[in-house]
Amino acid sequence: MKVAVSRKEHFNAAHRLYNPDWTDEKNDLVFGKCNNPNFHGHNYELIVTLIGEPDSNTGYVFDMKVLSDLIKEHILKQFDHKNLNLDVVYFKSMNPTAENIAIVIWRILRQQIDDKFDLKIKLYETERNFVEYPVH
Amino acid sequence: MKVAVSRKEHFNAAHRLYNPDWTDEKNDLVFGKCNNPNFHGHNYELIVTLIGEPDSNTGYVFDMKVLSDLIKEHILKQFDHKNLNLDVVYFKSMNPTAENIAIVIWRILRQQIDDKFDLKIKLYETERNFVEYPVH
Amino acid sequence: MKVAVSRKEHFNAAHRLYNPDWTDEKNDLVFGKCNNPNFHGHNYELIVTLIGEPDSNTGYVFDMKVLSDLIKEHILKQFDHKNLNLDVVYFKSMNPTAENIAIVIWRILRQQIDDKFDLKIKLYETERNFVEYPVH
Amino acid sequence: MKVAVSRKEHFNAAHRLYNPDWTDEKNDLVFGKCNNPNFHGHNYELIVTLIGEPDSNTGYVFDMKVLSDLIKEHILKQFDHKNLNLDVVYFKSMNPTAENIAIVIWRILRQQIDDKFDLKIKLYETERNFVEYPVH
Amino acid sequence: MKVAVSRKEHFNAAHRLYNPDWTDEKNDLVFGKCNNPNFHGHNYELIVTLIGEPDSNTGYVFDMKVLSDLIKEHILKQFDHKNLNLDVVYFKSMNPTAENIAIVIWRILRQQIDDKFDLKIKLYETERNFVEYPVH
Amino acid sequence: MKVAVSRKEHFNAAHRLYNPDWTDEKNDLVFGKCNNPNFHGHNYELIVTLIGEPDSNTGYVFDMKVLSDLIKEHILKQFDHKNLNLDVVYFKSMNPTAENIAIVIWRILRQQIDDKFDLKIKLYETERNFVEYPVH
Repeated sequence: MKVAVSRKEHFNAAHRLYNPDWTDEKNDLVFGKCNNPNFHGHNYELIVTLIGEPDSNTGYVFDMKVLSDLIKEHILKQFDHKNLNLDVVYFKSMNPTAENIAIVIWRILRQQIDDKFDLKIKLYETERNFVEYPVH
Repeated sequence: MKVAVSRKEHFNAAHRLYNPDWTDEKNDLVFGKCNNPNFHGHNYELIVTLIGEPDSNTGYVFDMKVLSDLIKEHILKQFDHKNLNLDVVYFKSMNPTAENIAIVIWRILRQQIDDKFDLKIKLYETERNFVEYPVH
Repeated sequence: MKVAVSRKEHFNAAHRLYNPDWTDEKNDLVFGKCNNPNFHGHNYELIVTLIGEPDSNTGYVFDMKVLSDLIKEHILKQFDHKNLNLDVVYFKSMNPTAENIAIVIWRILRQQIDDKFDLKIKLYETERNFVEYPVH
Repeated sequence: MKVAVSRKEHFNAAHRLYNPDWTDEKNDLVFGKCNNPNFHGHNYELIVTLIGEPDSNTGYVFDMKVLSDLIKEHILKQFDHKNLNLDVVYFKSMNPTAENIAIVIWRILRQQIDDKFDLKIKLYETERNFVEYPVH
Repeated sequence: MKVAVSRKEHFNAAHRLYNPDWTDEKNDLVFGKCNNPNFHGHNYELIVTLIGEPDSNTGYVFDMKVLSDLIKEHILKQFDHKNLNLDVVYFKSMNPTAENIAIVIWRILRQQIDDKFDLKIKLYETERNFVEYPVH
Repeated sequence: MKVAVSRKEHFNAAHRLYNPDWTDEKNDLVFGKCNNPNFHGHNYELIVTLIGEPDSNTGYVFDMKVLSDLIKEHILKQFDHKNLNLDVVYFKSMNPTAENIAIVIWRILRQQIDDKFDLKIKLYETERNFVEYPVH
């Protein structure tokens, strides 16, 4: 009797997409205006989903207040009002695409959430572009 | 060639989260402000999804007007503008968490929908907290 | 060179609409299902707007973080996860309609905000019903 | 390490639901006001999802700009500001229900997207009615 | 102590923008793809606002249930699932632009609402295009 | 018979809030995490409103396609995927608060729009913080 429970949080960050192994021309060709060397930014909407069985004493799969606090402590503190390329250690050597940001968030939270829960990440970079990880 | 079709409806209800077997202190510790004895409330957004093959004569998996009427008759009549703890029989002995509400709605509608259709429930308690049942 | 700046917050509350001077029949006739004696509830979305001139040193009309804190301290603490009729002193003798809630919120915040700023309240009771106060 | 990436686009179209093999009475009975012979219309919101592994050089599963251009070229040019029954060849002999529109969009885009990517379509006919194809 | 109260409703309709006194070329030049002779369509979101003083017995400026019923009876019955050009008498000789639709809706509802209330119309043709009438 | 017509566009940008005449301590005190020297960013939603009389030949106050093109040419080209502090000339000596961005956008567009139309700007920095200019 598994139920998925989800919590939405958000963070605002600057980023730039480029590959340091490529020429400026190739970076411009591939990443276009996302390769602005002075950065641009987004309001990221983050949805964290846990899947498990409701506890018979509480009726909760997981306390949403606790999940919100975990996201704030382990994700927002590092990501919110930051430059993803310059301020966030995971993206020193990895392009901060929405795909990679979602994978990084999953890896961080996976260490905080008991393995009995499945964990999924959905990340909106804009209202029109979003990613989900993992997918089966 | 299965297609999922979904209908969104909403209801407004009061509820309180607590476990009658626990002390007030433990209820406050676990449920926090959701344990206000005078209740609080939500605008619940309910999405009901049916999965099946489109009928070759209509192009419909299921008539959304019929689904909307089923939800109104079997769910909204019992839940809308109600106190879930006091007015809705299913929660006399079950905590009306979003998880449990979704499970109860699924059980009610499952009896109204032909077994050839898969049935899924998504329930938003707030814009930031939502649940899905069942999950595979 | 006046600019309006707005901050959106939300609170979840239970309420019941009725007039204690009326018979049950009249209350049912006028307030319908909103008159459920066991209460129902809403996710209220609250938008607080201040109008003034941007400060030349900051570029702010008003610091949105400070406004958010004022709303949390003076409104959400009293209204969020409460029963408006039973828990909130202003509605002991006043029907907690969206109109009256907006007026009460305006009166509370007006005492916290310097008179050089105009103050406006917009309150969504549901996505489809909302009120604004004051109106000129 | 598969990630789903999604792009939302929209189109505005007129349509009418009816089965030419049926009498007017049966069409009215089944399709109700959707069978208005003079057509009605919708703002369709279309979400196209691709599932694959992020490229190690770009961090992209698929360039969202390229996906947006593919949707514009192969779907919106044929569907946007059109009468689905009269202007879109696929619906000359198929009822333009949301289910069928989603299946048609999937078939068109499937030919444009490398088979190494899974492809999914989500189509909102209104904010309250939407379909997804395929479903497993 | 005036308060504005608003109710949102929606309708789905087909329309075509053109001026019968102009050549096809001029209509195409001015109205572009909105001049498709076979029509296109929209999900119109309609917000009706009344401004007045809350009644001291009810706390209502105007009962939102009554306003919703008025909109359904006098607007939606004529506009929903219709072709605005062919089915709605007001647009036989007037272009059904969002501007004109809002003015027509205002005129119809003005006759149904006591003059002691100010009346305003906001109409979304798409999420990105909307109009308001009247404006002072 | 004036009608307000509005067009929503968006842009993604990085920015930093600080006053170069102040110490780092004072900047941190006033602007908090918005003063991150490496910048952060937002998805700005921009609503441009024109007020005027509908043209009797078209039924338009202003062609929304033309307004969209004006915004793209004169605002988005300069603001979208940019660093407001470093890339946009207006903010070399002015703090890019939402208030100031809205005023700058108004000044740019005022030169492009005939004076017979009133012009208003609404700018969402996040879903919860937004500004409007001018206000009467």
